[in-house]
Amino acid sequence: MPAILINGQPAEHISVLDRGFQYGDGLFETLRVSAGKPCCWMQHMARLSKGCQVLRILMPEPALLLSEAMSLCSGEVDAVLKIIVTRGTGERGYAPPAQAVTTRVLSLSSAVVFPSAHYRDGVPVRVCDTRLANNPTLAGIKHLNRLEQVMARAEWHAEGESMPLAAEGLMLDNDNNVIEGTMSNLFCVQKSGSGPVLKTPLLTQCGVKGIARENIIKVAEAAGIFVREITLGLADLYRSQELFLCNTLMGIWPVRQLEEQLFPVGPVTRQLSQALESLRD
Amino acid sequence: MPAILINGQPAEHISVLDRGFQYGDGLFETLRVSAGKPCCWMQHMARLSKGCQVLRILMPEPALLLSEAMSLCSGEVDAVLKIIVTRGTGERGYAPPAQAVTTRVLSLSSAVVFPSAHYRDGVPVRVCDTRLANNPTLAGIKHLNRLEQVMARAEWHAEGESMPLAAEGLMLDNDNNVIEGTMSNLFCVQKSGSGPVLKTPLLTQCGVKGIARENIIKVAEAAGIFVREITLGLADLYRSQELFLCNTLMGIWPVRQLEEQLFPVGPVTRQLSQALESLRD
Repeated sequence: MPAILINGQPAEHISVLDRGFQYGDGLFETLRVSAGKPCCWMQHMARLSKGCQVLRILMPEPALLLSEAMSLCSGEVDAVLKIIVTRGTGERGYAPPAQAVTTRVLSLSSAVVFPSAHYRDGVPVRVCDTRLANNPTLAGIKHLNRLEQVMARAEWHAEGESMPLAAEGLMLDNDNNVIEGTMSNLFCVQKSGSGPVLKTPLLTQCGVKGIARENIIKVAEAAGIFVREITLGLADLYRSQELFLCNTLMGIWPVRQLEEQLFPVGPVTRQLSQALESLRD
Repeated sequence: MPAILINGQPAEHISVLDRGFQYGDGLFETLRVSAGKPCCWMQHMARLSKGCQVLRILMPEPALLLSEAMSLCSGEVDAVLKIIVTRGTGERGYAPPAQAVTTRVLSLSSAVVFPSAHYRDGVPVRVCDTRLANNPTLAGIKHLNRLEQVMARAEWHAEGESMPLAAEGLMLDNDNNVIEGTMSNLFCVQKSGSGPVLKTPLLTQCGVKGIARENIIKVAEAAGIFVREITLGLADLYRSQELFLCNTLMGIWPVRQLEEQLFPVGPVTRQLSQALESLRD
């Protein structure tokens, strides 16, 4: 059982009248905890704040969240902190309560240890049947309506199915644009006249703007690599030189196979992995 | 505080690890309670069962749900029963647990008393800016991912705003098709050579297939009125003779005004309201 603070108090249960439970009316952040501290705190707070603005939920004081986070993370060498923020309890009905009191839930769980081969050799990736629906208002933010990801992730099992076992699944929107993985963002490296170009799907219609994605764009630009956020189809991925996935917890996973096609673990992926690691430490 | 049963036990709180809270990974039903019994029980169970099939959640035994519902509803002349079913608790991550144990939450709350003028004179209705995203897999079922409805309902206040106060808001999809109200389904009555035709949006891409909607289609067909589930735009509504909204709790609300345009409370709406009432008793 993970350590949990609900509105600052140790607890494990929440009111069934909480609108997070009733409607998914809230947001979350998943943070890597390293050396007793949550990583990339300011970036996670910025995204949470953006989400609160979009949903018009009163954002908890970041200083309060930080003090609660620090009390959970203290002494943790390597762990995961999840922060859930909801509109709080309400009566039956969709209308947000006039006097909503934001609920905050911070929970600490064990670090996930990914196979070292994922980083060295890359991972096999499948294309999911489940699509991401376009909703420009909710695009980019990390809200609690996650049935599309649940349905997509349920399409395959990590173990016990025919080889190759997919480590992740890519999700497309209804217009056949590639958007992201079920739990990760996606980048591809393509040749151009003036060196490699790093491309990642534009997330204006759906998808989650990951903190790792943000950091990779930063380190790539700092390294002089041209980055484009752009509409991408599967064909664009298949004609790429390199592909990789990222999120806050896993860092960068090179893609060695997308459906039937093989990819090398290439130099740009290696370079960005190292740059991201140095940023994380 | 409403009376609540969680997995058969009186309780008011649920684990924060419940996937209903974490991801909106579940379903719900809202039932009218009359004379100590939930109304249209079999139809609500059929929709819940369909939803469980789509989400691959193990459906609780209907007999168990009924016995719990009856224990809450006993002696209630007029009330509202909400049933929430989720995939149960799980570890962090979207993948459904291999051994998921369904959570069921039954809660009873007071009947909502709507103004009698809503039925006699009809209601003013607005068109919401928030759109419903297309997701054919999730269309029709009543799942817990309800941020679109929350955002749409937050666009206006029931009180204190400029007249006319909207009683409900219509939601369109991204292709400008009219789908439903934030908490209701929609019908329009149009002239044809062989008498009035009742039309209601086709809900194959998004929207919730309401039990009242289902019953209205039945009573209309039984009365010899031709019913079509069809793609409808706002222009189709504006050139209709009658408009009305429905849900399980409110029955039928004639629409007397959609944005600037006025509508009469017409004979087909009256006829169907009476027929639906007689079915409800």
